[in-house]
Amino acid sequence: MVRAMRILHHVAISPHCRKIRLQLAEKKLPFGLEIERPWERRERFLAISPSGEVPVLRDETGVLLSDTTAIAEYLEEVYPQVPLLPKAPAARAEARRLIAWFDRKFDQDVGARLAQEKIYKRFGWTAGAGTAPDMAQIRFALEAVKGHLDYVGRLADQRGWLAGELSLADLAAAAHLSCVDYLGDVPWEECPPAKEWYARIKSRPCFRPLLADHLAGMTPPPHYANLDF
Amino acid sequence: MVRAMRILHHVAISPHCRKIRLQLAEKKLPFGLEIERPWERRERFLAISPSGEVPVLRDETGVLLSDTTAIAEYLEEVYPQVPLLPKAPAARAEARRLIAWFDRKFDQDVGARLAQEKIYKRFGWTAGAGTAPDMAQIRFALEAVKGHLDYVGRLADQRGWLAGELSLADLAAAAHLSCVDYLGDVPWEECPPAKEWYARIKSRPCFRPLLADHLAGMTPPPHYANLDF
Repeated sequence: MVRAMRILHHVAISPHCRKIRLQLAEKKLPFGLEIERPWERRERFLAISPSGEVPVLRDETGVLLSDTTAIAEYLEEVYPQVPLLPKAPAARAEARRLIAWFDRKFDQDVGARLAQEKIYKRFGWTAGAGTAPDMAQIRFALEAVKGHLDYVGRLADQRGWLAGELSLADLAAAAHLSCVDYLGDVPWEECPPAKEWYARIKSRPCFRPLLADHLAGMTPPPHYANLDF
Repeated sequence: MVRAMRILHHVAISPHCRKIRLQLAEKKLPFGLEIERPWERRERFLAISPSGEVPVLRDETGVLLSDTTAIAEYLEEVYPQVPLLPKAPAARAEARRLIAWFDRKFDQDVGARLAQEKIYKRFGWTAGAGTAPDMAQIRFALEAVKGHLDYVGRLADQRGWLAGELSLADLAAAAHLSCVDYLGDVPWEECPPAKEWYARIKSRPCFRPLLADHLAGMTPPPHYANLDF
């Protein structure tokens, strides 16, 4: 079998892509990054991503994978040497519940709203480009992030890592929070246990490339890449 | 270990619950149903479903599971006798991509929109209760369902079942389509291969209980429960 470089087609500020980058790095699987602009709906990209969404992973065997959950489960199945889901089925279900919590609920309540209003509109990546941010949407998200942060803090306090041991649940939560943190919108000071958990995961080597990513024309707050924030 | 009846907390017209009902039935796992009204946010329900969403499964060992993906993966892991995901990792990834397609994309484009405008508003289960359906939302959904139906037809034509063999991808797609079909909003006649695929899955014994479910005050069209529709 011919092996080629493993490539992740991604958007730097997409939490769904960041989760897969963290997972690959924790598993010590080397990969290259290819920047995609899904909103341009390039024909060549649609040919490898029927939904038109990132992330898309081309594994070194050439197999093409899309959808963040399908990619994550594939990586767990094919590269089990560094497992990122617990062993027991009930514990795996709890980790998967939390992954879905962030990939869907946090994203809907907070991440996708803020990205739409603060990034996509500003850079013209979306319908409504150039219009002013919708303050009601932003207020909703800034209120919602508090509840999610409390939840992270409570779980970290009770369990250490969110599902008891370091797992994809932590990587998913950290990926989503890191995108909101880039905007300066995570009120870390209001929730010390969540801050302590994030400092722990942020200091892992897998996190470094994420903290080095910069959106041209939009600087993150000083604490964003600081490990002792 | 004390074993109790397996219970699914559900909403009859929820596609996410229907997917799990189909999966349990295909696996020949007996279960009881408990009707929940998640919009009432009962404290006892929130205690078993942190997100406040259905489905929630209490397995016969007492383990409590929530989130439709976490439940489905748990059932595949714990009850592998009737497998509903293919064996090879790349094929499993393709099945999971399609499951996510329906659980997320179809639901956002079509199912959740129509349910909100035609069911939730009418029965007062939501904000905006009693207001007239938003026709722009309905038009969007009725246009989008055509594209999804074409996609189902193309896959069924090429592969027989959506992921090549009968899998959770078919159960997910059929669960979502069945809810829209209850409203009479699936233009089956426009896509014969999708109709043929649906007739095949609809005639499986697992489907019968879904077709018998009726919402009080809202009758499905005559073809809904008809196997030769």
